[in-house]
Amino acid sequence: MVTKLKRFLIGRPMKSHELANEKLSKLKALAVLSSDALSSVAYGTEQILLVLITVGAVALWYSIPISFAVLGLLAILILSYRQTIYAYPMGGGAYIVAKDNLGTTVGLVAGGSLLVDYILTVAVSTSAATDAITSAFPVLHEHRVIIALLMILTVTILNLRGITESATILMYPVYLFVFAVFLLIIGGIYQWMTGNAHVQPPVYGAAVPGITLFLLLRAFSSGCSALTGVEAVSNAIPNFREPASKNAARTLIMMGFILGAMFIGISLLAYVFGIAPKADETVVSQITATVFGRGIIYYFIQAVTALILFLAANTAFAAFPLLAFMLAKDRFLPNMFMVRGDRLGFSNGIIFLSILSALLIIASQGDTENLIPLYAIGVFIPFTLSQAGMMKRWITKRLAGWLLPFVINTIGMLTTLTICLIFLITKFSQVWTIFLFLPVVIFAFKKVNEHYRDLADELRIDVTTEKPEKKGSVIVIPVAGITQVIRNTISYAQSLSDDIVAVYVGFDDEEIKKMEKKWAEWDPGVRLIVLRSRYRSIVRPLSRFIDTVEWKKAETDHVTVMIPQFITKRWWHNLLHNQTSLLLRAYLFARQDVKISTVPYRLKK
Amino acid sequence: MVTKLKRFLIGRPMKSHELANEKLSKLKALAVLSSDALSSVAYGTEQILLVLITVGAVALWYSIPISFAVLGLLAILILSYRQTIYAYPMGGGAYIVAKDNLGTTVGLVAGGSLLVDYILTVAVSTSAATDAITSAFPVLHEHRVIIALLMILTVTILNLRGITESATILMYPVYLFVFAVFLLIIGGIYQWMTGNAHVQPPVYGAAVPGITLFLLLRAFSSGCSALTGVEAVSNAIPNFREPASKNAARTLIMMGFILGAMFIGISLLAYVFGIAPKADETVVSQITATVFGRGIIYYFIQAVTALILFLAANTAFAAFPLLAFMLAKDRFLPNMFMVRGDRLGFSNGIIFLSILSALLIIASQGDTENLIPLYAIGVFIPFTLSQAGMMKRWITKRLAGWLLPFVINTIGMLTTLTICLIFLITKFSQVWTIFLFLPVVIFAFKKVNEHYRDLADELRIDVTTEKPEKKGSVIVIPVAGITQVIRNTISYAQSLSDDIVAVYVGFDDEEIKKMEKKWAEWDPGVRLIVLRSRYRSIVRPLSRFIDTVEWKKAETDHVTVMIPQFITKRWWHNLLHNQTSLLLRAYLFARQDVKISTVPYRLKK
Repeated sequence: MVTKLKRFLIGRPMKSHELANEKLSKLKALAVLSSDALSSVAYGTEQILLVLITVGAVALWYSIPISFAVLGLLAILILSYRQTIYAYPMGGGAYIVAKDNLGTTVGLVAGGSLLVDYILTVAVSTSAATDAITSAFPVLHEHRVIIALLMILTVTILNLRGITESATILMYPVYLFVFAVFLLIIGGIYQWMTGNAHVQPPVYGAAVPGITLFLLLRAFSSGCSALTGVEAVSNAIPNFREPASKNAARTLIMMGFILGAMFIGISLLAYVFGIAPKADETVVSQITATVFGRGIIYYFIQAVTALILFLAANTAFAAFPLLAFMLAKDRFLPNMFMVRGDRLGFSNGIIFLSILSALLIIASQGDTENLIPLYAIGVFIPFTLSQAGMMKRWITKRLAGWLLPFVINTIGMLTTLTICLIFLITKFSQVWTIFLFLPVVIFAFKKVNEHYRDLADELRIDVTTEKPEKKGSVIVIPVAGITQVIRNTISYAQSLSDDIVAVYVGFDDEEIKKMEKKWAEWDPGVRLIVLRSRYRSIVRPLSRFIDTVEWKKAETDHVTVMIPQFITKRWWHNLLHNQTSLLLRAYLFARQDVKISTVPYRLKK
Repeated sequence: MVTKLKRFLIGRPMKSHELANEKLSKLKALAVLSSDALSSVAYGTEQILLVLITVGAVALWYSIPISFAVLGLLAILILSYRQTIYAYPMGGGAYIVAKDNLGTTVGLVAGGSLLVDYILTVAVSTSAATDAITSAFPVLHEHRVIIALLMILTVTILNLRGITESATILMYPVYLFVFAVFLLIIGGIYQWMTGNAHVQPPVYGAAVPGITLFLLLRAFSSGCSALTGVEAVSNAIPNFREPASKNAARTLIMMGFILGAMFIGISLLAYVFGIAPKADETVVSQITATVFGRGIIYYFIQAVTALILFLAANTAFAAFPLLAFMLAKDRFLPNMFMVRGDRLGFSNGIIFLSILSALLIIASQGDTENLIPLYAIGVFIPFTLSQAGMMKRWITKRLAGWLLPFVINTIGMLTTLTICLIFLITKFSQVWTIFLFLPVVIFAFKKVNEHYRDLADELRIDVTTEKPEKKGSVIVIPVAGITQVIRNTISYAQSLSDDIVAVYVGFDDEEIKKMEKKWAEWDPGVRLIVLRSRYRSIVRPLSRFIDTVEWKKAETDHVTVMIPQFITKRWWHNLLHNQTSLLLRAYLFARQDVKISTVPYRLKK
């Protein structure tokens, strides 16, 4: 039943060599990896305008130079990550680049920051999509947590089905969104050219009283939230078809152009139509209404926008398991993140991300707005570290023509560092928790690593000298009475060793005498040791007896306790047996250095 | 820590031979076993008056003849149970007597009915005591479920500490209650004699219009609720000091006299002081107020009454585990009810009763009044069956002078049967569930019995012919790599058998080649079989391999799978290992007929 449901939801298991078919074409990769970045177009311009409007509508013209500054930063990031992709063809996320050039700890800061960030991405984007839905259908507002959780469940199942399959499904909404935004931009430009809109943009370059550098920087850093998700491609190189690096680099450039064009287009339209941010309507919605009126095209664009916000979560689902895999490969996360599931995805990473983001949504009751600054800084810290790593690399390697790439990375690093600082200064109350959880995560990474290293040291073997040795062996069989089960167990023991002791724990003299007599009568060829338990415990006298067996034997001998265990036909039959064997097993396992052999006895009825 | 807490709550474990000291003296037995019966004095008279008042205050004089009828029934029951005690000195509850004389099924009806009834007793009496407390302190009303649960917890701990200890503690409130009621009766008679009370009782023997036989029978049956708990002594004979039968019989007679005197005393006082039942004040409270006024004696009597209602639950805690023990001894309940705990009580029965009654209180939110008729009929069914059993016994055995006891049991049987019928007719809507749960309980008893009988048949051995035989043995060791763990495991296997196979499950060619090369280099004296898993599962290829091993070998050979298992130093380290060994163990245990040997490897760090 469970297997059938799993097959229905996830699909048939796939053979390992099918992995090659699971690789992504550029078109699909763009869909999977860019939904996070592209979706930020839906709110990037608005973030800038929201800061500027605090001074007044006359200040809105600043959005144009600021948007171009963001565009410039985007270009720098794209160029910088393009360099990374070629430098690290096996996947060069911030973790790898920082670790490789700036040392493990810095790498872990970047990796931990990104891991946590992906969880935030899922929580924030599903909440945003839920808000879009509940704005349209207010009756659903009560059920927002459930809706968000259902979304996470959907993305989880899609991703468990495998990368290509989720890519195939996701391609349509992503490209529909791109199409919709370009439709809006072209329509907008046409309207503006023909002068049909009848609106007056703020005077460009007008002097604005009260404007400060601090405010402009804040507007700029807010606009930079449109750049989150840009790093996804460089993390996911192993998912690309060969030649992976080249395909990844091209996909990145493609994404950069689309993202840049969409972002600057929206910003320009917002300016020329004189649009100011409103509390109850998004900037994109206002532009669309101005350009097309509130007809069918308006609703189409709105719907596709809501969809893309939800799909931003999918980028995290593509990136998190890969990053977790890399951390696990370096022994900073448990092995289980390296296991490929039935459909060749890293299922454990997918499920882990799904559970944590679901918990975050439940804990915050679907109200994740406070998490957005945290989420932004969680992206820009690894951005900064990754570029600092690249700078170090250029300086160290001094390959031919290293200066230009070095300058690009330096500019990128300085800009992202500045954005980090601006976030820290202007939104400290919302981002201070990063100083709490980052050290915790890094400490956990190091603890895990320490354990694996100790383990490896302990288990390492010198194949030339350390061979297994044959030793003596004693088998102890606890017996509760003379039954077929005991006969079966003794028969098994006799085929393994000649040194066998049966142990009976009796509660009173009469019982013990009866047992001794019956045993003598049976005479199975094994001596019986009788223990008397004054406290009616079976486990403790037995454990003491095993101690003495161990003590008497040479240290080189193996002591095996052979525990017969019923396997009942029906589950409730287990309630009818005292489960002494399980108790004994658990007790011995925890306390004694003995081998425990379970001899199953299958009941026929 | 847990052990310490257990020691503090329950006390040190006791040796089996200390059981003799745990036997009860008559005085203590009376306290433990009669609290249920004696507590019914607090509401017995009131139950009669409540039925009569529906016709009018002039009908209240009927309470006197009805009370004497109840007294007569009490005498019959006491005499009848006295006969049972001597006939069944090992404990002659309704279950034993009915089973012995009327067959197993009838015995199970009586036993099942009583078992369920004890659960109801605990729920009803703790709820009643809670009501008494929350009447005094209304602020506690919200917390009634918690209060009732705390009471159950208290009684449970007392009983887990052992019989004598709980008897010692319970003696004081029980005898205080007896003292209080007699004080009330003597004080009342004095007041009535001296004519200080200035009240007018209803005219005795006055003709009352509207009175019917049905109503009188109903009043009588309601009054009979004062007789619940009378059977407790006959169940608990094994708990008495020697000579157990004699002591038990004397205790029973003693209880009969005290109960009878208290009941008839309260009924008479209620009559002579012309007391009618009120919604917000109990009859006992009214009598007390009339006799002593609302002073310190009044509050003393009220407090002691609340206490005894609570302690009625304790009788069930004494009787239930014993009855469960008897049913388990006859293989109708799981073995675990036969195990004596650290303090020599049947702990499992105590805990089981505690949990079920707690669940009942939680399910009913502490509102257990609807359960009272069910609880009463649950007592009178076994009463009837027990006496029918005794009748059969007299007829069958025809011992000297059997006629008088036969007549006593016949009268008793007819009366209790009548009461059952009255309950059924007048309160069908509240008691019909008995026709639901009794068959279920009896079906469960029979199913359990069937399993134990099948088991015994299957496990029985012919000691003269069926000896264990030595057979061949193959050991299969799954290996994941060449480590100290595998060396340790192979070393152990070599000391048991010469026929050992190591099995490696690889995912790709490169991995497999590497392993084969390293194994050849190591050369541990064991051949390595390599399996290729295209679906990345370790368990399934291994299981298929074991199938072929089993198929190749003669049927008489034993196949052992030796599973190495880490024992980590810290619990969280378990998260860092994939637990393949546990998975493998569970899978093989469920599907394969192989022996599973767990070879622990204790990690040092």
